[in-house]
Amino acid sequence: MPYINVNENLPGIRALLAFSPETAEPIGALAEILLRTSDGLSMADRELIATYVSHLNDCFYCNHSHGEIAVCYLNGDRDLVNGVRHNYSEAAVSEKLKSLLQIASKVQQSGKAVSPEDIENARQQGATDRDIHDTVLIAAAFCMMNRYVDGLDAVTPKDMSSYPLRAKQIVEKGYGNHIFLQPQPNNA
Amino acid sequence: MPYINVNENLPGIRALLAFSPETAEPIGALAEILLRTSDGLSMADRELIATYVSHLNDCFYCNHSHGEIAVCYLNGDRDLVNGVRHNYSEAAVSEKLKSLLQIASKVQQSGKAVSPEDIENARQQGATDRDIHDTVLIAAAFCMMNRYVDGLDAVTPKDMSSYPLRAKQIVEKGYGNHIFLQPQPNNA
Repeated sequence: MPYINVNENLPGIRALLAFSPETAEPIGALAEILLRTSDGLSMADRELIATYVSHLNDCFYCNHSHGEIAVCYLNGDRDLVNGVRHNYSEAAVSEKLKSLLQIASKVQQSGKAVSPEDIENARQQGATDRDIHDTVLIAAAFCMMNRYVDGLDAVTPKDMSSYPLRAKQIVEKGYGNHIFLQPQPNNA
Repeated sequence: MPYINVNENLPGIRALLAFSPETAEPIGALAEILLRTSDGLSMADRELIATYVSHLNDCFYCNHSHGEIAVCYLNGDRDLVNGVRHNYSEAAVSEKLKSLLQIASKVQQSGKAVSPEDIENARQQGATDRDIHDTVLIAAAFCMMNRYVDGLDAVTPKDMSSYPLRAKQIVEKGYGNHIFLQPQPNNA
């Protein structure tokens, strides 16, 4: 049960965004700008970074929400998403993305954990300044999102079939706040 | 030296915001909405929470930047800010703020570290849903800001006299992005 009085028909962060529309607007805008562009990193890459950080932070709602969005962008390849979660160094992703997931895993621990060697490795694999910037900011942003969701004990749907439904909404409509502020069909 | 090619005349997060104006806008808006209101928690309370979380994350730039902003709101009482950093339970702040700093310290570790007892204690001290929400989100947001700054190894000014100068700008003008995007007088 959430720690504050929110609409319990809204899952996860959606109830928190509805509770506080003023802060929901920049949070939604940040997600939209960071995750819904293919400038450099693909949208699949970006959602994989978000998923992996949420997995490391043990945030079930964000991990599975963004994992399912990645699945959509990867044409249904859920095994690949699970591979990134559990052992990205052996997953079927590019060496560049592996080097960025390494940076993201350091950011999850602490900004100070990122080393010059991590950055140099990513550059060797072709990462640009923009790729490195976006990786660090996506990882940092999910350290915020995960804490916001779990720190207020937001509702985590147990019905796993609801995650692909919500993912499809995001893929189609983006992170614009209007979709967060009311219960979805099938309580998705 | 920052890990990406940014304007090194801009300190800390300012160089990152200038590198990426698209993401700077919602980040600045979130800071403005969360930190520059007295709806429930005072602006001093909000900056103390931001300072304490930045201190726990060992982010020198954010810790001292927001600490100095708190000093402004507290009419120059730097000892109080240091007291909150080093032992808030003995600092001359309200029992309500102490209970919220306890929640913030849990959020800094992990969202899951916040317990029903932490929340109940804050309610006993008069904290409202809005106070609890804002505390969790401020703490979570600084887990993002701190990682963004240190994860890209942003420039940390060593000249401590520059922190009060920048704090004064924020107190006067807010977190609107325009002030971040160009070097300030005296390289502040």
